[in-house]
Amino acid sequence: MPDLADRFRVAPGSSIRLADLDTRDDAGLTKDQVRDLLDDVQKKMFVLQRRLHAEGRRALLVVLQGMDAAGKDGTIRVAFSSLNAQGTRVVSFKAPTSNELDHDYLWRVHNACPRRGEVGIFNRSHYEDVLVVRVEDLASKETWRRRYDHINAFERLLHDEGTVVLKFFLHLSKDEQRERLLERIHDPERHFKFNPGDFDSRRKWDQYVEAYQDALERCSTDHAPWYVIPADRNWLRNYAVARITLDALERMDPQLPTVKVNVAEAEAMLD
Amino acid sequence: MPDLADRFRVAPGSSIRLADLDTRDDAGLTKDQVRDLLDDVQKKMFVLQRRLHAEGRRALLVVLQGMDAAGKDGTIRVAFSSLNAQGTRVVSFKAPTSNELDHDYLWRVHNACPRRGEVGIFNRSHYEDVLVVRVEDLASKETWRRRYDHINAFERLLHDEGTVVLKFFLHLSKDEQRERLLERIHDPERHFKFNPGDFDSRRKWDQYVEAYQDALERCSTDHAPWYVIPADRNWLRNYAVARITLDALERMDPQLPTVKVNVAEAEAMLD
Repeated sequence: MPDLADRFRVAPGSSIRLADLDTRDDAGLTKDQVRDLLDDVQKKMFVLQRRLHAEGRRALLVVLQGMDAAGKDGTIRVAFSSLNAQGTRVVSFKAPTSNELDHDYLWRVHNACPRRGEVGIFNRSHYEDVLVVRVEDLASKETWRRRYDHINAFERLLHDEGTVVLKFFLHLSKDEQRERLLERIHDPERHFKFNPGDFDSRRKWDQYVEAYQDALERCSTDHAPWYVIPADRNWLRNYAVARITLDALERMDPQLPTVKVNVAEAEAMLD
Repeated sequence: MPDLADRFRVAPGSSIRLADLDTRDDAGLTKDQVRDLLDDVQKKMFVLQRRLHAEGRRALLVVLQGMDAAGKDGTIRVAFSSLNAQGTRVVSFKAPTSNELDHDYLWRVHNACPRRGEVGIFNRSHYEDVLVVRVEDLASKETWRRRYDHINAFERLLHDEGTVVLKFFLHLSKDEQRERLLERIHDPERHFKFNPGDFDSRRKWDQYVEAYQDALERCSTDHAPWYVIPADRNWLRNYAVARITLDALERMDPQLPTVKVNVAEAEAMLD
């Protein structure tokens, strides 16, 4: 079995060119194989989440980023379908509200972090503050440049205080995005997902690639690694995210709290 | 097929005696039948939740109440297992924090309500403010007595502004609770669920029954009905909650937003 975490992790301190990373890499797996593998991973994820929740001491935070149509929603729906909603907190970050803008950009993110025992999933995240903010000139270069350090320090805090942080960049090719946007255009059932804004970001594709590369290079750390997940094939994308998340849960190895129960005494209390 | 919503709904204005309601009522269904029925209900719930989320105009709030060991956690885990975590918000209400106590008792509840497009599930709720608060004398009689009106007005607000409210009382017998607490005592894997506090509330069983009856009678309304769900059999409990929730979603009949897409124009925007 290939070690997907190893295969897709951005080594801290390395430089990467997204153009060199194959968006159709299947890691030597077939769709048929992955069906069974995913099923097994989901069952184990359910069991470990339950223990994490019962333990109540640590948290897991999964960050999902990617170009439009890369499949952030689909990943949550499929890769994490076995999670118990009690103990799971999904937060979608949209354009900040005026109340949020009245604080620093990490304020709303911190507020949305999972509590001990929870699995948190961010659909977009604080990385937008060095992506869309940079490409769309929503802040000066001086402002967004110093944010990589803030982000690393923030994620270090989360890590040190008991939250395991995993970050997935869903790596979609421009051609595959075209196919997916065409589907949205042609299928009335998907029209509600159609957003002309998706076309804007497509026109600035190269700038986004550059911004992503900087974020991946500067913010892939031992304590909060980035993974570049090939996203042209949904089944590989879902499985890779699920598998790497399960690896992290297995390393955390959450334990049911040991509670000493005096059986005789407890029985006597029951009328 | 029995109409479970009809069967278990507390008719607004009626008076009820929980002792007269069978905690083992199976509604004429068998465990085997229910396995397939639940599977079908869960699939439909997933589809309708997706539409509710896409529609983004209304919300659904499910309130779960019941004595200790009645199965609130299990209901969330099983009855709602098919829900997409993105679009589901589970909130467990515990003893209020000092910050929460610095506000009125509905403040934290209001804050935890689902947003448009979401399914919210309350594991315990504002009803604790007329249950444990009443039985344990945490507020004066004068204080808790006027809360039924607050609660009805609050739920009316939610209803009027687009949130469908369903409230389930998981009706467990004292004998079955005994069996379940014994299991927790004897199974080391369940020791972490053991809480001596559960025994306290058991010793005040009759007072809790009285407090529940008042809440069910005074706060079962057309806009936010209470359902008394027989809870001695987990499979019937899970199915009944899921089925009645699906009924509500079917009545809501959420629609995908209609977005007018000019296909030719959109295609031309794709390079």
